[in-house]
Amino acid sequence: MPYVNIKVTGGSEAPTAEQKAELIRGVTDLLGRVLNKNAATTVVIIDEVAMDNWGVGGETTTVRRQKAKFNS
Amino acid sequence: MPYVNIKVTGGSEAPTAEQKAELIRGVTDLLGRVLNKNAATTVVIIDEVAMDNWGVGGETTTVRRQKAKFNS
Amino acid sequence: MPYVNIKVTGGSEAPTAEQKAELIRGVTDLLGRVLNKNAATTVVIIDEVAMDNWGVGGETTTVRRQKAKFNS
Amino acid sequence: MPYVNIKVTGGSEAPTAEQKAELIRGVTDLLGRVLNKNAATTVVIIDEVAMDNWGVGGETTTVRRQKAKFNS
Amino acid sequence: MPYVNIKVTGGSEAPTAEQKAELIRGVTDLLGRVLNKNAATTVVIIDEVAMDNWGVGGETTTVRRQKAKFNS
Amino acid sequence: MPYVNIKVTGGSEAPTAEQKAELIRGVTDLLGRVLNKNAATTVVIIDEVAMDNWGVGGETTTVRRQKAKFNS
Repeated sequence: MPYVNIKVTGGSEAPTAEQKAELIRGVTDLLGRVLNKNAATTVVIIDEVAMDNWGVGGETTTVRRQKAKFNS
Repeated sequence: MPYVNIKVTGGSEAPTAEQKAELIRGVTDLLGRVLNKNAATTVVIIDEVAMDNWGVGGETTTVRRQKAKFNS
Repeated sequence: MPYVNIKVTGGSEAPTAEQKAELIRGVTDLLGRVLNKNAATTVVIIDEVAMDNWGVGGETTTVRRQKAKFNS
Repeated sequence: MPYVNIKVTGGSEAPTAEQKAELIRGVTDLLGRVLNKNAATTVVIIDEVAMDNWGVGGETTTVRRQKAKFNS
Repeated sequence: MPYVNIKVTGGSEAPTAEQKAELIRGVTDLLGRVLNKNAATTVVIIDEVAMDNWGVGGETTTVRRQKAKFNS
Repeated sequence: MPYVNIKVTGGSEAPTAEQKAELIRGVTDLLGRVLNKNAATTVVIIDEVAMDNWGVGGETTTVRRQKAKFNS
């Protein structure tokens, strides 16, 4: 009966439909294996977050990606 | 002062503006009736989730809907 | 298949087990009535939040309740 | 290591990229100042919510904005 | 940089510290494998929800567990 | 009308009542300053998460704190 919410960056980094299906299958399996949870009632919701809307280290991901490019 | 978040499938299954207004009114009334909460400060946020991003039983809703169609 | 999260103040304002059951039943019925959602897969999670941890108007609920008492 | 989620109305009220960057910087600074949290692992996610999907006082923000205009 | 929130029932069904560590490791690995996400910035938060506070099918988990026992 | 959720580690790292009040005031001010949001309807909820329930880098915070101590 678990509920799982996965947030990842979207836009040019958005997962494909296949990758999303794999995440849903993988985390449902994990909960069955570790906690014996029933897959039938395991709910997984994936949120794709725009890079301007996701901050780490006080900066948006947009800015972080630009700096990473500049430094590489 | 309650906060309510409702997540439903979007896309072709997305609720209309009228249905969303009815959900907001309904859940606000419920909290007033059961817990005597003040409607003025009851906040309701509805998220519409793409069917590829919502999994149950280890499968995306996209796949579940296709199987349901096939079996009907 | 909806997912609903309801946050209310806990502690001395916490809902009873009966009130929580009534909220769960009520919001599940609402989603069935308005959006024809299947009750069997409607998930509702209630969070009880300590009054020091809930702010409105820039103040904790603890402070707001004291002011309300003082003014009444 | 804190995690912060900020939800604001989107659409015509959506914050600009600059405002989002300022929110991310500001809340990361706040957590460093008040709780001595490490900015490098502070995550901030901003959600922009459609006005039909955000309710207060039992009404959608769409309706509330129309009434505010009518009364002004 | 993903963020994952896992909600499971707590109380007598709460996962042990070892099981929680295994969930955190497992979902972090999954995101690395499927999406090539950096483990160092993958955040996982597990919430344990009281059985009176978790509803499925319009009933609390407390009631569902009693019925399951009665029927077995 | 914004809604803000702040998650920090609890237990021995839990913020005091004063620190929580300061976070609530600070983030409410920030939203007023940057987005001109009305403080009266700004809601802030702080969650304190047990260190076994918070993972970064595939490890619980409990384990990370032990390693940090060992290395210092």
